[in-house]
Amino acid sequence: MKDNINILITSVGRRTQLLKYFKKELKGIGNLVAVDCSNLAPALYIADKHYIVPRINDPNYINIIKDICRKEEIIAILSLIDPELSLLAKHSKEFKDIGVTAVVSPREVCELWLDKYDTSIFCHDNGFKFPKTYNTFIDFENALKNKEIDFPVFIKPQNGSASLNINKANNMKQAKVIFESSEDMIIQEFLNGQELGIDVYVDMISRKVVSIFIKEKTVMRAGETDKGRSIKSNTLFKIIKELVTKAGLIGPIDVDVFDVNGEYYISEINPRFGGGYPLAYECGANFPKYIINNLKGIENQPEIGKYEENVYMMKHDTLIIKKDL
Amino acid sequence: MKDNINILITSVGRRTQLLKYFKKELKGIGNLVAVDCSNLAPALYIADKHYIVPRINDPNYINIIKDICRKEEIIAILSLIDPELSLLAKHSKEFKDIGVTAVVSPREVCELWLDKYDTSIFCHDNGFKFPKTYNTFIDFENALKNKEIDFPVFIKPQNGSASLNINKANNMKQAKVIFESSEDMIIQEFLNGQELGIDVYVDMISRKVVSIFIKEKTVMRAGETDKGRSIKSNTLFKIIKELVTKAGLIGPIDVDVFDVNGEYYISEINPRFGGGYPLAYECGANFPKYIINNLKGIENQPEIGKYEENVYMMKHDTLIIKKDL
Repeated sequence: MKDNINILITSVGRRTQLLKYFKKELKGIGNLVAVDCSNLAPALYIADKHYIVPRINDPNYINIIKDICRKEEIIAILSLIDPELSLLAKHSKEFKDIGVTAVVSPREVCELWLDKYDTSIFCHDNGFKFPKTYNTFIDFENALKNKEIDFPVFIKPQNGSASLNINKANNMKQAKVIFESSEDMIIQEFLNGQELGIDVYVDMISRKVVSIFIKEKTVMRAGETDKGRSIKSNTLFKIIKELVTKAGLIGPIDVDVFDVNGEYYISEINPRFGGGYPLAYECGANFPKYIINNLKGIENQPEIGKYEENVYMMKHDTLIIKKDL
Repeated sequence: MKDNINILITSVGRRTQLLKYFKKELKGIGNLVAVDCSNLAPALYIADKHYIVPRINDPNYINIIKDICRKEEIIAILSLIDPELSLLAKHSKEFKDIGVTAVVSPREVCELWLDKYDTSIFCHDNGFKFPKTYNTFIDFENALKNKEIDFPVFIKPQNGSASLNINKANNMKQAKVIFESSEDMIIQEFLNGQELGIDVYVDMISRKVVSIFIKEKTVMRAGETDKGRSIKSNTLFKIIKELVTKAGLIGPIDVDVFDVNGEYYISEINPRFGGGYPLAYECGANFPKYIINNLKGIENQPEIGKYEENVYMMKHDTLIIKKDL
């Protein structure tokens, strides 16, 4: 094992706050290196060192990342965006061969949760509540006839992320036009409940669930939690523990849940740090520390629910100014 | 005139950066007071003092604001949201009677720019380019027949703000469903060009245009400029100067423009600080200073285009954490 805990975070985008936490935890023990395909990604400028790299679909991407890992003596790599997760997972052995741990769930797990229809099947088969989901218009029409579902419904891309292109349809005419506006759309039950964002850490050594942090998503903005409040629920802790274990997820995970009068519906799993994670850190759920422990060979002891309740987070904008980029 | 330059900003929301600039300019000469209807508005916590107030449509709103003005010895008030501008303008005499200057354009000017159809008429009548706009489906169908317009088109609320409920329609079926999905929709030409955000200050004493700052909107997020770059154009300086003068706008103004191969189309005017204003300040266009000068009875000298070019702004999130709100 190399002496320093040097960590590389890819596709860092706007996630400056998360990088600040990593930098804090790495102080005196290692460097934080960041990469992104755009020199306008503000989080680049938080890291100790940064590189501009090609897009993740560039055939040379993985080789370039590996070169950076060697040069910077990196021992762990993680990504902050969904489409890159299965790519890192796919190449995790190659990374291991050069001494780099890919902090990511197994490939097939990452891919399952990218697909909202497959996700609905997984939840149904494993006894977790999930909004009713249809991937053909005929199935939806039949469900309407059988009164399994009613308007309004959500129509969104099967593989979407960050609430892009999500539409609410109030009647058949709207539903048809939106469904046909793009390929691979799904129709989903509209749940009228409180949205919850849950940050989970599964130990990479023991595979035990170490931390579950629940926040009420008070206000959303650009598909992310803009304002949130920490809450606790033993019922939900139990459901989430069972879910991430059955799904085979590891490392940092972000789960979205709808609380419909005390019934918890899984809405989405992102096997990476969620956009609302900063509140969890501020309340004491220190995932960068857990990752560093695991990289040092130390198992983290479960501390589910050990955090302060009723703490509010309000995100707001600050600036990075750069001349002549 | 009272001794201190105490300024009240209403509906402050997430505009923490702007409030920081005001606080900096007021240092040693006055207090910054902020109000919002939500205790989760992060910008409240930047001001020297803050109050939670009812919503702007509450019949008691203006009285409560006037009470705060008296108590805090306020000499100027400004709002950061569109629907409140004409309200402040309407009551500007009442404010004047208690020694408070409402930093806002005249009421009819504020109301004109809330309405995208009226705006299109104003621009047409005064010789400014504006995307073709239709407020009835028949007018749109006729325009299609006459080949004045073609798909795709934008369909949005006549009185919308912050890019809410804006939809792109690619064909007649989509256009019809979106147009009928809500009342008071308009259909607008889709312009394929570079979006520009322009921050303008019109002196409240001399009524002269003091500052025009142009930024390229490189990346948008939640209807706001997320990344931008400072640029200059003498042609556009001239158009904007003429536009704000003809429109009778005063104080801080935000103008959105499409640059379609060097032809400048006005897209929107917001007679208030724009969400992208921080880049202008960072480049030297100091509107809080101009406002303070005007409140002291000092005219600002025009300095159009006196700023640095090719400066990049990247917004990113930071947090305010509060317990037991």
